[in-house]
Amino acid sequence: MTTPHGSFQTPAFMPVGTKGTVKGITPELVRRTGAEILLNNTYHLLLRPGPELVQKMGGVHSFMNWPRPILTDSGGYQAYSLSELNRVDDDGVTFKSIVDGSEVRLTPERAIAVQNMLGPDIMMAFDDCPPSIDPNAQAPNQPRLASAARRDSVRGVAGGGRPKTYDHVARLDLANERTVRWLERCIRAHERKDVQALFGIVQGGTDLDRRRWSAERICALDCPGFAIGGVAVGESPEDIAKIVRFTAPLLPDHKPRYLMGVGYERDILEAVRSGVDMFDCVLPTRNGRNANAFTASGQIRLRNAQFADDPRPIEPGCDCEACAGASEVRVGHFSRSYLRHLFMADEMLGPILVTLHNLRHFQRFMADLRSTIVSDEWAGFRARWPVAYTPVSDGQAPVAI
Amino acid sequence: MTTPHGSFQTPAFMPVGTKGTVKGITPELVRRTGAEILLNNTYHLLLRPGPELVQKMGGVHSFMNWPRPILTDSGGYQAYSLSELNRVDDDGVTFKSIVDGSEVRLTPERAIAVQNMLGPDIMMAFDDCPPSIDPNAQAPNQPRLASAARRDSVRGVAGGGRPKTYDHVARLDLANERTVRWLERCIRAHERKDVQALFGIVQGGTDLDRRRWSAERICALDCPGFAIGGVAVGESPEDIAKIVRFTAPLLPDHKPRYLMGVGYERDILEAVRSGVDMFDCVLPTRNGRNANAFTASGQIRLRNAQFADDPRPIEPGCDCEACAGASEVRVGHFSRSYLRHLFMADEMLGPILVTLHNLRHFQRFMADLRSTIVSDEWAGFRARWPVAYTPVSDGQAPVAI
Repeated sequence: MTTPHGSFQTPAFMPVGTKGTVKGITPELVRRTGAEILLNNTYHLLLRPGPELVQKMGGVHSFMNWPRPILTDSGGYQAYSLSELNRVDDDGVTFKSIVDGSEVRLTPERAIAVQNMLGPDIMMAFDDCPPSIDPNAQAPNQPRLASAARRDSVRGVAGGGRPKTYDHVARLDLANERTVRWLERCIRAHERKDVQALFGIVQGGTDLDRRRWSAERICALDCPGFAIGGVAVGESPEDIAKIVRFTAPLLPDHKPRYLMGVGYERDILEAVRSGVDMFDCVLPTRNGRNANAFTASGQIRLRNAQFADDPRPIEPGCDCEACAGASEVRVGHFSRSYLRHLFMADEMLGPILVTLHNLRHFQRFMADLRSTIVSDEWAGFRARWPVAYTPVSDGQAPVAI
Repeated sequence: MTTPHGSFQTPAFMPVGTKGTVKGITPELVRRTGAEILLNNTYHLLLRPGPELVQKMGGVHSFMNWPRPILTDSGGYQAYSLSELNRVDDDGVTFKSIVDGSEVRLTPERAIAVQNMLGPDIMMAFDDCPPSIDPNAQAPNQPRLASAARRDSVRGVAGGGRPKTYDHVARLDLANERTVRWLERCIRAHERKDVQALFGIVQGGTDLDRRRWSAERICALDCPGFAIGGVAVGESPEDIAKIVRFTAPLLPDHKPRYLMGVGYERDILEAVRSGVDMFDCVLPTRNGRNANAFTASGQIRLRNAQFADDPRPIEPGCDCEACAGASEVRVGHFSRSYLRHLFMADEMLGPILVTLHNLRHFQRFMADLRSTIVSDEWAGFRARWPVAYTPVSDGQAPVAI
């Protein structure tokens, strides 16, 4: 795919640089992992340092020193999921800033204006993000969106309305319709169509009929690319696969398809087989900071005592800077023993090195996917990436190799 | 100077890698700042992960992936200054581990055995580090060593003795004599003289007669290099200069001279003029993590609001990775505006980039010192480094440039 800041190959994995930085990694090192495009969160940059400042500094590319393609989300998802207070109406969302507690308003027009100021190559439509799971039918200890749903059920779902009970089905239908109307408003508000591509987002939860309805309405509008949203927000891997397998083929095949926020290797493989071109996920960076390293056969937890005197790299054969060292100062690699020491001693270099490894892991995975798409030799791919053929759950068992 | 792991030019500045890592910076990036040798703290590596493990992993060079020269201190200074509990006697020091609270014993023999296991190219003698300032004559809010002194005055200064009052002069004399006896024991205990150079340490506080006495006794012993210890532990810049100017010329001029824990550019310049060859200091790394950036005309505090929309690099003309960018992803530089954003948003990349800049600042300073020693054109040096000719105090005023 070609953008004003260069091209990237698909299927592509975009590292997440929430606040205008991939946590702990310089842009040069991000680039060296093989990443060609990365993602910034509009929500976070809106609250701090603010889109006006980023624009004054020349836009996100110049601000963060990444001259290649950048995609920003619209801020909608975080406005729903991160904020203590949010009120949704037909015009937009009001939420409390996690930075200073002030009340912030996002509408389709404002979300587009903010992204026009930030200046990414690809910007996302502002959509209505209802809870994916009915809070009335839910067990305790559910993920974050569930609490948002509970708040929603108290505060009411339609503009001004305050129903005593939460009707999940009605909420999903309303969100689906609203997301179409908001995309129309986003397209009208978009002032830099020549240099920024606005992607529409298909919603619809886990219900395939709603997905089809959303895909038909959204894809009828004039966007250079489309995304599948509302996935990987708490559903089972089977549900993710079902939604993606059903929805991806409904999107125009001559335009890029982006599956937002997904995921594990297995989810990505499944989605690529369904025709998805773009992915983003915090897994490599977030897990890296927590000492969880991805390998072709599963994650390993580097804090485990078993690695205390393990001289091997995270993954023998990996060509990342942690496993293979850097050319200028090369004495082999950073051992699991050393990495464990860094985490036990709370040293920044631990998160940095495992993040680097994990980012490279996902880029190597995507590169292999791209070449296997061409060669069509999937038996070899399966042998090289057993992790992508292993059941995945939230409590994914780490595999020591 | 040549070591089993390569040579380094002098005068040299050694970045501090306390726990086996220069905080937040990969060895490759440390190398790219121009550093040719770095320092590890024996105290920290002794407590975690332990010298046996480091030895099993091939020694500090292999453990931390730095194949160039490494110097370790003896652990003595931290045993005195960091520990809640320490008891000194003629045989050694007992202190409480800051990692797990256990009681740890260091003697000259043990300090050498630990460093023999860690395997640095240069190891330091285990010395007696008394408080530099008489706690009886002291104002409140003095630096750490003062509290150690107060404890010392309660617990007594000589083996087994528990005098009711603290005699600072007697304590200094005892430390001076003990340091000589302990160096003799260090030399006898040293088992790897062929590959590890053991440096003796001259003590004596701010009293020039004691410094002379110590220099004569210490330098009479057979060491490949000597250090000036007990400096920059709370004295005024004038006292530092006075001690160094007096002591450095007393050390053999055909062996390397190392001024421990110093310092600001001005202190280094003064010491180089006195004939000192080696320096280490936490200033570039510690201040970098706190958003304080060194420039040729003074430090700037990047959290200051004045930098919010400042598009300039930390120091125009600096060739560090933060100010000049990296070749692969070069769109100019990281702006002060972006760096401030990173610190305000608590992003790791802020400390990383400013640490990189600060490390490069000190290496550029040393490189210019080395070439000016050859050219003898000090007027030019003075014009390029005004910071080294500006009075320095603990509350050094930052200079915006």
